[in-house]
Amino acid sequence: MTQWVYQFGGEKTEGKADMRNLLGGKGANLAEMASLGLPVPPGFTITTEVCTAFYENNKDYPKELKGQVAEALKSIEKATGMVFGDPANPLLVSVRSGARVSMPGMMDTVLNLGLNDETVKGLAEKSGDERFAWDSYRRFMTMYGDVVLGLEHHDFEDILDQHKRDMDITEDTDVTADGWKTVVERFKEMAQRELGKPFPMDPEEQLWGAIGAVFSSWMVPRAITYRQIHDIPEDWGTAVNVQSMVFGNMGDDCATGVAFTRDPSNGENYFYGEYLVNAQGEDVVAGIRTPQSLTIHGKEKEGSSLPAMEEVMPDVFKQLDDVRTKLETHYRDMQDIEFTVQQGKLYMLQTRNGKRTAAAALKIAVDMVHENLITKEQALLRIEPQALDQLLHPTLDPMAHKQIIAKGLPASPGAASGIVVFSADEAEARAKDGEKVMLCRIETSPEDIHGMHAAAGILTTRGGMTSHAAVVARGMGRACVAGCGAITIDYKSNAMIVQGAEIKAGDIITIDGSTGEVMLGEVATIEPELSGDFAEVMSWADETRRMKVRTNAETPLDSKTARHFGAEGIGLCRTEHMFFDADRIQHVREMIFATSAPYRREAVEKLLPAQRGDFVELFKIMEGLPVTVRLLDPPLHEFMPHEQKDIDTFTKAAGFEEDKVRARLAELAESNPMLGHRGCRLGISYPEIYEMQARAIFEAAIETSVTPEIMIPLVGTARELEILKELVDETAQAVFKEKGKSVDYIVGTMIELPRAALAADKIAEHAEFFSFGTNDLTQTALGMSRDDAGKFLPDYVAQGIYDKDPFTSLDTEGVGQLIEIAVERGQDARSDIKLGICGEHGGDPASIMFCEQVGLDYVSCSPYRVPIARLAAAQAALKLGKPEAADIKKAA
Amino acid sequence: MTQWVYQFGGEKTEGKADMRNLLGGKGANLAEMASLGLPVPPGFTITTEVCTAFYENNKDYPKELKGQVAEALKSIEKATGMVFGDPANPLLVSVRSGARVSMPGMMDTVLNLGLNDETVKGLAEKSGDERFAWDSYRRFMTMYGDVVLGLEHHDFEDILDQHKRDMDITEDTDVTADGWKTVVERFKEMAQRELGKPFPMDPEEQLWGAIGAVFSSWMVPRAITYRQIHDIPEDWGTAVNVQSMVFGNMGDDCATGVAFTRDPSNGENYFYGEYLVNAQGEDVVAGIRTPQSLTIHGKEKEGSSLPAMEEVMPDVFKQLDDVRTKLETHYRDMQDIEFTVQQGKLYMLQTRNGKRTAAAALKIAVDMVHENLITKEQALLRIEPQALDQLLHPTLDPMAHKQIIAKGLPASPGAASGIVVFSADEAEARAKDGEKVMLCRIETSPEDIHGMHAAAGILTTRGGMTSHAAVVARGMGRACVAGCGAITIDYKSNAMIVQGAEIKAGDIITIDGSTGEVMLGEVATIEPELSGDFAEVMSWADETRRMKVRTNAETPLDSKTARHFGAEGIGLCRTEHMFFDADRIQHVREMIFATSAPYRREAVEKLLPAQRGDFVELFKIMEGLPVTVRLLDPPLHEFMPHEQKDIDTFTKAAGFEEDKVRARLAELAESNPMLGHRGCRLGISYPEIYEMQARAIFEAAIETSVTPEIMIPLVGTARELEILKELVDETAQAVFKEKGKSVDYIVGTMIELPRAALAADKIAEHAEFFSFGTNDLTQTALGMSRDDAGKFLPDYVAQGIYDKDPFTSLDTEGVGQLIEIAVERGQDARSDIKLGICGEHGGDPASIMFCEQVGLDYVSCSPYRVPIARLAAAQAALKLGKPEAADIKKAA
Repeated sequence: MTQWVYQFGGEKTEGKADMRNLLGGKGANLAEMASLGLPVPPGFTITTEVCTAFYENNKDYPKELKGQVAEALKSIEKATGMVFGDPANPLLVSVRSGARVSMPGMMDTVLNLGLNDETVKGLAEKSGDERFAWDSYRRFMTMYGDVVLGLEHHDFEDILDQHKRDMDITEDTDVTADGWKTVVERFKEMAQRELGKPFPMDPEEQLWGAIGAVFSSWMVPRAITYRQIHDIPEDWGTAVNVQSMVFGNMGDDCATGVAFTRDPSNGENYFYGEYLVNAQGEDVVAGIRTPQSLTIHGKEKEGSSLPAMEEVMPDVFKQLDDVRTKLETHYRDMQDIEFTVQQGKLYMLQTRNGKRTAAAALKIAVDMVHENLITKEQALLRIEPQALDQLLHPTLDPMAHKQIIAKGLPASPGAASGIVVFSADEAEARAKDGEKVMLCRIETSPEDIHGMHAAAGILTTRGGMTSHAAVVARGMGRACVAGCGAITIDYKSNAMIVQGAEIKAGDIITIDGSTGEVMLGEVATIEPELSGDFAEVMSWADETRRMKVRTNAETPLDSKTARHFGAEGIGLCRTEHMFFDADRIQHVREMIFATSAPYRREAVEKLLPAQRGDFVELFKIMEGLPVTVRLLDPPLHEFMPHEQKDIDTFTKAAGFEEDKVRARLAELAESNPMLGHRGCRLGISYPEIYEMQARAIFEAAIETSVTPEIMIPLVGTARELEILKELVDETAQAVFKEKGKSVDYIVGTMIELPRAALAADKIAEHAEFFSFGTNDLTQTALGMSRDDAGKFLPDYVAQGIYDKDPFTSLDTEGVGQLIEIAVERGQDARSDIKLGICGEHGGDPASIMFCEQVGLDYVSCSPYRVPIARLAAAQAALKLGKPEAADIKKAA
Repeated sequence: MTQWVYQFGGEKTEGKADMRNLLGGKGANLAEMASLGLPVPPGFTITTEVCTAFYENNKDYPKELKGQVAEALKSIEKATGMVFGDPANPLLVSVRSGARVSMPGMMDTVLNLGLNDETVKGLAEKSGDERFAWDSYRRFMTMYGDVVLGLEHHDFEDILDQHKRDMDITEDTDVTADGWKTVVERFKEMAQRELGKPFPMDPEEQLWGAIGAVFSSWMVPRAITYRQIHDIPEDWGTAVNVQSMVFGNMGDDCATGVAFTRDPSNGENYFYGEYLVNAQGEDVVAGIRTPQSLTIHGKEKEGSSLPAMEEVMPDVFKQLDDVRTKLETHYRDMQDIEFTVQQGKLYMLQTRNGKRTAAAALKIAVDMVHENLITKEQALLRIEPQALDQLLHPTLDPMAHKQIIAKGLPASPGAASGIVVFSADEAEARAKDGEKVMLCRIETSPEDIHGMHAAAGILTTRGGMTSHAAVVARGMGRACVAGCGAITIDYKSNAMIVQGAEIKAGDIITIDGSTGEVMLGEVATIEPELSGDFAEVMSWADETRRMKVRTNAETPLDSKTARHFGAEGIGLCRTEHMFFDADRIQHVREMIFATSAPYRREAVEKLLPAQRGDFVELFKIMEGLPVTVRLLDPPLHEFMPHEQKDIDTFTKAAGFEEDKVRARLAELAESNPMLGHRGCRLGISYPEIYEMQARAIFEAAIETSVTPEIMIPLVGTARELEILKELVDETAQAVFKEKGKSVDYIVGTMIELPRAALAADKIAEHAEFFSFGTNDLTQTALGMSRDDAGKFLPDYVAQGIYDKDPFTSLDTEGVGQLIEIAVERGQDARSDIKLGICGEHGGDPASIMFCEQVGLDYVSCSPYRVPIARLAAAQAALKLGKPEAADIKKAA
């Protein structure tokens, strides 16, 4: 016979912490606490399997359930010495949901169940407090009516308000015992009126009604939505916990509280928490009375004048502090607990791993290692890599008032305020005058880079998480909110409209790139601070991880930042970003305009000194580390002038006629530029360009001491790479001969087309390394333009077509297969081929896990994601390399 | 010891026809003829392996070669009774190249080799004709000087012209023996002057010089280019044939000629050929004298007054006619032969399978089956499927004069003349007046369809083989030259410029869609005629093939045409083509403009009756056959008005403001529309549209008797199909209930994204069929936009990166792998899944071969390619199913 019900805290305790899948988090931990000998009010858990069976059997329960519940209830009665429904000595219970993971506020709870017109009298007598008993009764009716019977909460509120008006009182605390009796009477009348039948008085019926309501709440829309957002499978189901009630509101020897075993905001090792004398749990949360600190330390820290529990109830506090130690020693993690003190006796109602800020997570993990509570590996697994972002960027002051006017995509983390400007030139000009500016654009393009660099933050109204603005902002560490469609920018009137209001250039706004929020005015921010804990955790991560972590960078600033954050080389240096400098773009445009090879060569040669200079600077910063340089990739028209004034400047300097320039522009226009004449196709058509770039790299390498890795983009066939590798090798030989000195270098390719992945064996014959360009690989494999997907991708994620934005987190089922194929075939053809990833996914922890799985040698990401990648790579190594570490994680 | 030299025709014959790879085509067939007992002048072949070794060893010969050549030469001397270099009885030889496949005019030949100041006298004496001997000598010097010594041909010509001026004569035939002696003297002086050394007199030196020149000619640029164009691998190499000379110019009992064993232009079974008395082979080709017919039948047919060989040399003709029979019986195919008659004796110099027109190929194949020379299978394998195009479309009269002004892509076969018009509306208007028009556009769009339909032919200056113009023209059977970049169209001035000249609207031009040529004025065309042979061959093909052949069609005309050509259903009905009718586009635009589902539904419902009507008509034409209908696929902005007048019309009719319309247009614009909001993504975002289309299909199906196959486009994940299949199924149930009648139908998807191929197992759980959309699959797998690839694809094909345009012939290495993966996984998940292809490749023979290989159930192609596909499918079945058939093909 299947066991559907597990007891705890009374005659026997049948569950434990690692039965979370069956008993839910709450139930499993109640059982675990009971087994530890902690004071847990007796109760039982109806398993998640009942929930699954309930939905599979058309909302019918397994036939054995009734018997098992009755038996468990009997057991509680024995343990408590009270009887469910007994008018003289009534047992009251709480009924709470408890899923495998916490879904705060999503599902329902009923307290004080078992009260009716008879038992309320018994409770009054037993407690010696009639007002308490009737107050408990009306609380029960309100919750039960709302949760189980489907009555409107405001109907209860209205009756209560009317009563207070009648009595000419304002506070609930002023309602007398008789008052509550009147209110209860009116509640019953209202229920009868609304339901056409009386409010249920039979405790048995009440219990099953509440159990059914909890199971049904698993499928209400808000729960479904919550699960979708948080990736929780529907078939996990919820458990139901039925537990004998204890009361923190039976007098001044009663109390209730919530606590964290350490400070969840900074990780400090002291007992952090709040309590209220003579109160029920909901009072702590409701904010009617000011909760008091548990400890004297906490009280002093907060500058409170209210006495600490440590002072008021020293004995019970001592018990509670022992519980704290016991729980931390047992769970080896900071706990979030709930307790109640009833008539001087302590009861534990919940424990779970406590949520914490990134700074706290780091400090707690490091402290616990030093306290020998956990190992370094456990510490590493316990820190959410994404959360490190909080430590690297300014955050909004949580105390500050904020007026949110719109929400876009959280494209690059950090909070920033600044004066609204609508052009890159203005951003630069005002920044030079010492102003903090917020660059607001419909979209950004490579021509805006100087303005983005000058700005404190960037706001765009179009584009996704991998739009130009997002990618560049992340690289630079600038805060960015992208694709904020609720805002309409009108460049002509130099203003933007949001919710009907106009924000003009010069106004101040604040953005939070970690949440996507856009706020009016300046909101105070807190500067990040890198503690010693950070360095310590990073050093453990570095000891642990197998994969190297490189960065995507081409400017000296980005490269320095990345090296500071621990990058072990450059995995992607996009040479085209170097082409936009004012003194170069003219030559680039002349090169593009050239109609034959000799002219092109002439224009290209003018670029050589500048490009060589770039590489010398970059290579010096990266001294001793590998640098992967990608040769020219984007379609040429990206470099062309498009606005009239740029066209004028260009035609004048080059001595061309405008007609011809416009004709060439039209010629370069493409229907699908992403799939057009770009990448190595440019190298095939215009070998002069790649030759110049290769020359610049080799000449720079000779002056410095990096090993350049020359990367050919957008290869689809082995032959393309063969042709272009030959060009690079010939250039290398020529340079080495001229200079009388040679350097080591390797030539490889990006794998960013499905065909390249499929032909990886043949391509590997010419490639010494593969770098997975997962941005383009995702675009082509999924047939989805990242610049256009914003229109339908939200629908897609909402309907469960993709779990997450595949441009943010690798689509392992599709794109991942191509990577696996390429890795396998590439290694077959060349066993020592170097493998890396340089798409945006290189900084995403889930994707990094995949990279570890398929055995890549390194990941490369934007500078500010380097610490995240270091930690994620360490976690991936632990999870895949050491199964026991993974077990620990799961259990925690 | 490797045998580098193979003898034939003399003491022994060592080769045979199937040794073509080793001996080249010419050498192998000379040996074969000798073995058959035919009169072949003795000679030997130096193998293609020598050529390969020559290039591998830095242009050195294998060391045994010299000895083997000397020995073979001795053998010729024995057989002919003449001696190489003997002043009294000189053996003269020809040295000719001969590769595995014929490369006409690409490589070099030297005749009369062995002549020098001494042997010329012996030849004079032996032949009794001093003039003949010196004429032969000067011919040898000219050829050898040009081919081996690198002297300029015009230097020889100049000397000869000077001599004729000196002698005051105009014709070569008037040069006397002494005259030739003078000319030879001057040739020698010129050679000494140019080379700094005398013209080689040593026959041995002459021979090796000629052999070296032939091998070297394998690598001259024109030969390399020819091989690239014709897909001939470089490592095949060429053989060298050294053969004793015979002379057709030693008197009136001598002759030379070329012949086909049947008429190569129409296949008629008579001996078709030309000869000249007292002439050398080159004279027949040179056109100085008018060649005469071989037979009296031929003479009468051509209305010639010159006597036939049958009359002039009846005995030798009889021998030749016997050779004809022998060769046809032996080779079982029409032969192209060369012969010489020396002093009454017949010599065979060459035989090979003769080239022929498509009509001739059909007739010869059918006749030979009836003559029991070959089997039906062999007949099927012998006809080039592509060549059938000639039979289905008008062709240029080969006799007509044509002034070619430009060349574009041969986008849709057939030749057509017409009045130049630059807009679809004008095309329609003038066609209504009975004029033949040529629609000339930079590009075409769906809005031009009515004009394309009205036109005799279509010319575009942009776009590739799979551009809109090309695809639609092929579907309609209209001639089309696409992407003709040499022409610049200026809509404003209503004219186009080509080579500096202006062609105005109203001028007449002619295009040949089979070659891409554009001609000035009207060029006569020949209308196609479908003979009984065509029907007979098609019926054999139908008996033989395994795969079904369907068509891509949506208009009644296209569907009728396709059914007439034997289509067995529709494989791709593109519903969006139905949206462009003037009376519908307004509703389509209102649907797109709708900002919420109810408005969208309202607009969509207006389209329902028209769409249902389309399907009823189409289904009636396809009565009893399956019809695959693809739901809406293209991005919505394709339907939107873009020109001011269209915007005006739309805004007026819909009652919208222009500003709002323009805003919506901007909203719909995409960076990469190919990868944008289209296909099933529209169905996910706007289910109303797909629901209406499904309803139209089911309501039409109930009225008729086809089994609709509903196809969801651009699926990348199983979930997309799951959602949309549910929508279709629900719609079906609703319609069936309303109508009280149901029909069979199936739901499937296009596999046109790499991710779909990789997830085919999961997708197949919801798909009853897969149709490979190889256009988009090629675009995404290769990351190559077909609209933009024109800029670099020619470079790519030229450099051997892709053998052929991958949009025309399937890239089996890349895209093919995805198809194989999808087939395998799809069948694993659903063993009876129906598999087809509906991309442009469905009409390409090489791609059809691939489809047979991977086991697809059908191919679908444009109506005019249906016969080609039927034949190609039969050939594929034969080649893959019956290995012996393939062998026959290879040997032939």
